[in-house]
Amino acid sequence: MLRALPHHDGSELYTAPGPHRLGDTVPVRVRVPRTSEVTEVWLRTVQDAEPRMRRAAVVDEDGRDVWYEADVLVHHPVTHYRFALVRDGGVAWLSADGIHDRGVTDAHDFRISTHAPGPTWLRDAIVYQIFPDRFARSAAADRPVPDWAVPAAWDDEPIARGRETGTQLYGGDLDGIVEHLDHVSDLGVTTVYLTPVFPGRTCHRYDAATFDHVDPLLGGNEAYARLSHALHSRGLRLMGDLTTNHTGASHEWFVRAQEDPASPERDFYLWTEPDAPDGGPGYVGWIGHAHLPKLDFRSPELRARMVEGRDSVVGRWLQEPYALDGWRIDVANMTGRYGALDLNQDVAAAVRATIEQVNADGALISEHFHDARDDLAGDTWHANMNYTAFSNPLWTWLSAEGSDVSYQAMHGVPVPRRQGAEVVAEMRDFDGGLPWDVLVRQWNMLGSHDTPRIRTLVGSRELHEVAAGILFTYLGVPVVFAGDEFGLTGTTGEHARATMPWDEPARRDEHTHDVYRRLAALRHAHRALREGSLRWVLVDDDALGYVRETRDETILVVAARAPWTGAVLPLGGSAERLFGSLELGAVRDAGAGAGRGAGVGAGAGAASDDASPSTDGLVVPGAGPHVGVWRLT
Amino acid sequence: MLRALPHHDGSELYTAPGPHRLGDTVPVRVRVPRTSEVTEVWLRTVQDAEPRMRRAAVVDEDGRDVWYEADVLVHHPVTHYRFALVRDGGVAWLSADGIHDRGVTDAHDFRISTHAPGPTWLRDAIVYQIFPDRFARSAAADRPVPDWAVPAAWDDEPIARGRETGTQLYGGDLDGIVEHLDHVSDLGVTTVYLTPVFPGRTCHRYDAATFDHVDPLLGGNEAYARLSHALHSRGLRLMGDLTTNHTGASHEWFVRAQEDPASPERDFYLWTEPDAPDGGPGYVGWIGHAHLPKLDFRSPELRARMVEGRDSVVGRWLQEPYALDGWRIDVANMTGRYGALDLNQDVAAAVRATIEQVNADGALISEHFHDARDDLAGDTWHANMNYTAFSNPLWTWLSAEGSDVSYQAMHGVPVPRRQGAEVVAEMRDFDGGLPWDVLVRQWNMLGSHDTPRIRTLVGSRELHEVAAGILFTYLGVPVVFAGDEFGLTGTTGEHARATMPWDEPARRDEHTHDVYRRLAALRHAHRALREGSLRWVLVDDDALGYVRETRDETILVVAARAPWTGAVLPLGGSAERLFGSLELGAVRDAGAGAGRGAGVGAGAGAASDDASPSTDGLVVPGAGPHVGVWRLT
Repeated sequence: MLRALPHHDGSELYTAPGPHRLGDTVPVRVRVPRTSEVTEVWLRTVQDAEPRMRRAAVVDEDGRDVWYEADVLVHHPVTHYRFALVRDGGVAWLSADGIHDRGVTDAHDFRISTHAPGPTWLRDAIVYQIFPDRFARSAAADRPVPDWAVPAAWDDEPIARGRETGTQLYGGDLDGIVEHLDHVSDLGVTTVYLTPVFPGRTCHRYDAATFDHVDPLLGGNEAYARLSHALHSRGLRLMGDLTTNHTGASHEWFVRAQEDPASPERDFYLWTEPDAPDGGPGYVGWIGHAHLPKLDFRSPELRARMVEGRDSVVGRWLQEPYALDGWRIDVANMTGRYGALDLNQDVAAAVRATIEQVNADGALISEHFHDARDDLAGDTWHANMNYTAFSNPLWTWLSAEGSDVSYQAMHGVPVPRRQGAEVVAEMRDFDGGLPWDVLVRQWNMLGSHDTPRIRTLVGSRELHEVAAGILFTYLGVPVVFAGDEFGLTGTTGEHARATMPWDEPARRDEHTHDVYRRLAALRHAHRALREGSLRWVLVDDDALGYVRETRDETILVVAARAPWTGAVLPLGGSAERLFGSLELGAVRDAGAGAGRGAGVGAGAGAASDDASPSTDGLVVPGAGPHVGVWRLT
Repeated sequence: MLRALPHHDGSELYTAPGPHRLGDTVPVRVRVPRTSEVTEVWLRTVQDAEPRMRRAAVVDEDGRDVWYEADVLVHHPVTHYRFALVRDGGVAWLSADGIHDRGVTDAHDFRISTHAPGPTWLRDAIVYQIFPDRFARSAAADRPVPDWAVPAAWDDEPIARGRETGTQLYGGDLDGIVEHLDHVSDLGVTTVYLTPVFPGRTCHRYDAATFDHVDPLLGGNEAYARLSHALHSRGLRLMGDLTTNHTGASHEWFVRAQEDPASPERDFYLWTEPDAPDGGPGYVGWIGHAHLPKLDFRSPELRARMVEGRDSVVGRWLQEPYALDGWRIDVANMTGRYGALDLNQDVAAAVRATIEQVNADGALISEHFHDARDDLAGDTWHANMNYTAFSNPLWTWLSAEGSDVSYQAMHGVPVPRRQGAEVVAEMRDFDGGLPWDVLVRQWNMLGSHDTPRIRTLVGSRELHEVAAGILFTYLGVPVVFAGDEFGLTGTTGEHARATMPWDEPARRDEHTHDVYRRLAALRHAHRALREGSLRWVLVDDDALGYVRETRDETILVVAARAPWTGAVLPLGGSAERLFGSLELGAVRDAGAGAGRGAGVGAGAGAASDDASPSTDGLVVPGAGPHVGVWRLT
């Protein structure tokens, strides 16, 4: 349970800051607790698929830790490396997913990337996701109902499943958002991410009928410009949402493509033989859906119109008066991919180049619900919506006992309840091997318009607070789905698209709202929570703990989903409480039990040669559900 | 310790046989022991980076197992999939590296490949590696000593380290091999893999001075033709060894490139600025060595001369009168790779295309000492020299206590001694995720000219027999480094290049020789050892056991490195001894202890609904060191 393990990551304490160029040497450091009994540290890099081993030198030490350093030669656009930890009778590997007492593949090696990182504001952001139909109605929102829509009253509960979910129109609009920016600012949000605003034939608008103008139902182009201006004048940013994988079947390109086989738009789509496996309607649709025809980026004309250059769809909306600060790309994972055809990274690179051309400070986030590691080298998407390394594992840790809520990874099978060790292993499996510049920009979510609400998943205000505590203190960018701060509920993604309860105090949990405000403020106040190292110090069935750390500051986070035994953590000094209700005690000389058990290698090691390494500890009480944040001094 | 786990692999019991084409559906099966308490099985495939879940149907069952089946749609050149195992309160994933009680990446998904597999003879081969300078001298071998060489007497011990290792010339030649083919045939070998025969300035000849003719020191082209003819007339095959990464500095191309910057050969190499990090000599050498200049495959002329078409180096030697049956490519891992430049898979594909053009039944093996998984999709190298998933882990299990022998993976740090669970995890980590067609052709070695001798590593005849027992019964092709069958020793790769003790009975362990003969015969006699499923049934610190299985036959292998506790294995029927000295006992109703403990999921599962699933078992005595092979009926 207690952990004092050798550690390295890409943060400033361990890795010299970038930018890194081919041919550079980058010093990297490992912190080795004396109790781990490591006698040598070696750096293993790989050049042209051939490993090189270099012994690391001791460059610093104190009573608790010895710091080793070696130089990584940046030989590749993304150079990977790990460390060998030598102890009497054994060699273990320190990779980004932990310590292994056996040979391991390179999959979880640390990465140094020569690619430009995403913008700094993105790393430091707190993002607020708004689904415009459900956020707020302005006075002008009383617009004629289109033929595809079924109007709903603002306090109607959304339908949870089935075809009707897409046609329930609540009539929220962009000026409605403008009217509620005090709420957004007050929450501590820095960036609004708005789901699609182009017209479609659904309330979610992921079935665009055009990319040329904003849906008049939302207030049209002028309202979009007003929202952008209102946000920017408050110092907030705005990110758009674009589907590059497909359009709606009502899209003007697709209509022309069907009407005129000689039109340039014909080549924008993937046509199939009538009897092809995917080919019910004669073309490829998103997961077989005829109303979402898939785009074919082999067409140079499509690339020009959609993704390449200032005048493309991607480029145009980044310019005034809309001035988007970046794009979140819907179904990024499938974009450009079909069977043996894979243009995904080419398209992504084109989107990124256009963003950089129009707005050097623009951001690019992918939606990839699954194993996105191969798409995240740092040269295309700046980061990804981090379901795999954050939401999924956290849900399995916090889901209510006996819950029948299901999640994306399992398509209908209820979220299983898992223990801390498995949850952390899952997070590290999916995170390990991504460049640090990506990790600090990953979009961490407790939920979105595509998932159940976190409140429903965990089943209580107390566990919701635990989840939020992790969201705002973990590595990566917190993304809040609007309404989570009020404790809104929902059993499915569609059911979760509940309207904001502006005029219904009974639907607003102001306690949870206050928790969100305080946690957001905490994140803004402490650079360590945004840029700091992430080091696991506690992995228990029911309690998890990690340290976020910069040169200036050390912050401890402990989250418990239930009452547990408590622990003495192998951390020195004293703890100042920043969040939560618990005080930590300090103990001197907690002994070998604190910080030894989880050291490197198996078997009984010889006693350390060092005279009495420090084993001072911090006592964490076993209260729970609870989340606490402390500054260690 | 006891295992009865759900299982799947690419063998005939679990996967419909190929060839598989895009658009095919391939039925795949999972064997689920009743004691694992799984209630549902789902197939998870990934199409265009988006998962699909499909429930598997029960298609067969008996008292012990339930068999589930579902169809994989072959949507990609390499389609990957895994299974979800649902049990009350939990979902676990069955991947190629085992069962996981958490979400996992796609890295170890099973793979179905549309690429043509390597030749059948390669799958069924027993390969014998000959290092020609050290194998045998013919009557004609008394040739003038070249300027670079230091002659050694046949019974001199090779130098273990340093520059002189490359210049010790023992004078073995190709006709010497021809004279000893009775030994080769008698051993059970089907394919001779001969290290390079082109002239160089070392005894290993990995520094080719030309690819145009065979070294006269070995007998020249005529002797090569005689060897090929002699092998083929015995029904044996011959594989060559070619370095595509570099040539020697004495190579005619390199000499011309240096003499004449306007020559076409100039572009064959990678020139550097005098002050570049790698650039001591003004060009890139293999790991910085000036005598091994690296080839640059951006040159079309180099590609034409070296790898493309019948008249290229690759093509020429596959033709009569040499008629090689394939190539082992030296330093395949680094070939075509340099920093941001990566033509590796292009070059590999060109080599493969040339082989297929000249000899449709030709084989292509890569040397990649490290993490080769990304290079082994099945469309380039047929398989790889399997240090990572076989030699390395096996060495850590069998290395003598306190041994100071080191191995490639750690460059100088002694081979650590590890427990069975770590060893099997390492094997599955590196194997998991490769197509089955590759796995059955991987070149498994106990050692090579680049490693210590297995006899030295394990330190005893008994443990050498255990190692050989695994080599000849495991998944993949056994490759014997000539002399291992006599128990030759060596502490390093260079030291291991000992001469064959034809006239020194004291250097020949005829007991070990007999073990090799019997194990080779066993492999030839049992299709299950060549093509069969590989299912782990025993993972103990000191004992490992697996089942190889086809439709016709079930073979159990148990290897123990030391005396251990023994076990009851969850296998029914009775056992007929094929190798080793132990008889197994059968027990009826071994109870929940046999085969339950290691089931899916953690925590206490509910009792199975099924009426008394069979828990008959086989009793394995705890003797060791020992290796046994049994046919189960």
